[in-house]
Amino acid sequence: MSKLFVPLVLLAEALGLASCILIGLWMGKYLGGFAWDGSSQEFNLHPVLMVTSMVFLYGNATMIYRIFTGVNVPRIAVKATHAGALILATIMMSVGLAAVFQNHNANGIPNMYSLHSWLGIATVSMFLLQLVLGLGIFLLPFASSQLRASYLSSHVFFGIAILSMSAATCLVGIMEKIFFSEIKYSALPAPAIIANAAGMAIVAFVVTVAYILTTDKAASPSNRNYSNLQ
Amino acid sequence: MSKLFVPLVLLAEALGLASCILIGLWMGKYLGGFAWDGSSQEFNLHPVLMVTSMVFLYGNATMIYRIFTGVNVPRIAVKATHAGALILATIMMSVGLAAVFQNHNANGIPNMYSLHSWLGIATVSMFLLQLVLGLGIFLLPFASSQLRASYLSSHVFFGIAILSMSAATCLVGIMEKIFFSEIKYSALPAPAIIANAAGMAIVAFVVTVAYILTTDKAASPSNRNYSNLQ
Repeated sequence: MSKLFVPLVLLAEALGLASCILIGLWMGKYLGGFAWDGSSQEFNLHPVLMVTSMVFLYGNATMIYRIFTGVNVPRIAVKATHAGALILATIMMSVGLAAVFQNHNANGIPNMYSLHSWLGIATVSMFLLQLVLGLGIFLLPFASSQLRASYLSSHVFFGIAILSMSAATCLVGIMEKIFFSEIKYSALPAPAIIANAAGMAIVAFVVTVAYILTTDKAASPSNRNYSNLQ
Repeated sequence: MSKLFVPLVLLAEALGLASCILIGLWMGKYLGGFAWDGSSQEFNLHPVLMVTSMVFLYGNATMIYRIFTGVNVPRIAVKATHAGALILATIMMSVGLAAVFQNHNANGIPNMYSLHSWLGIATVSMFLLQLVLGLGIFLLPFASSQLRASYLSSHVFFGIAILSMSAATCLVGIMEKIFFSEIKYSALPAPAIIANAAGMAIVAFVVTVAYILTTDKAASPSNRNYSNLQ
């Protein structure tokens, strides 16, 4: 896949950006824009921040190792960028969650009853556990190289699994928001097409990222010695 | 993971069965049961058949190689079971799709407008392509062992990717059906809890299956020479 590596990364970036732009367009143009005042415009921050942090930024953080390691960049810089992108994603995700809870509380809407919220809490909990384990085992200097080697495959597996769960949570959330926004869905007005397209772009982004991460490691330009975990 | 292999397979089976039972209970007990007469009871066949075929049966078909190859079973029997389970899944899936189209047409409901349907058609198309390629390359005797070896990693990757997309489609469909069934969702009546639990079980099933399929191949009891593709 060496010839396909750069085109696939560019495809992933295009799909990830399309996801963020389509969700932003839906919330910003068709559902009233953004505010921080308990109104539905505060809610609108939630989908934009969650897709940007838990899909686009998270997906890019997972690809950083494939893109940069082995290229002439110090390994600690790659690790710091991976961790930094995930910490930035965590901050944006926290603001995105605060927006929806504040909006619900300000309007007397119950929290945490929907499949979207159950999935979301499971995903965010696993994401935070993965972040803490990753920081503790790979970034801090305490873990033995044996522990690092034995944890690596779990970290990679759950990295992709949690990204996929994050995407599934977004899809369910998009469907929920379409129903709450009370458009005539079956007539496919512009916001319905934009919402459907955003969902499809999210799925295509995650499949492309997973393909880049798991397929034919040896042929990628970032081919390197994976046993060097420091 | 050798010690964990059997418990993980049992966990996957429990989660897969729970998914089918919960969806069956929701449709059979709370949404009026089943029929083939254009009524909403015909629609009810759709969720049950799709989850049973495209999640439970498909997930099991993917695990058959891990569970049986290397055990003292002829390889052709394992291949035939894998292909047979997927062909049975295809038949059940076709009936499940016929149920929803007939129900829509009988009631003047438009087809193919929702994110659920867009995702579903993408997933089913990729599933059928994967089935045709799998049959043509692995089961029929025409392909060279070189072609088989080079296609195997794509077949495995897309097997898991399509299973994940199938699960995501089910989740979006569950959310859609909750809204169309007009319960007071936020009060979490029994069918809402059952539907949420079914969604969570589907996610947990697919994550467990993906873990079984991708992690630590060497330590599984089905450790074998993967280069023997005949």
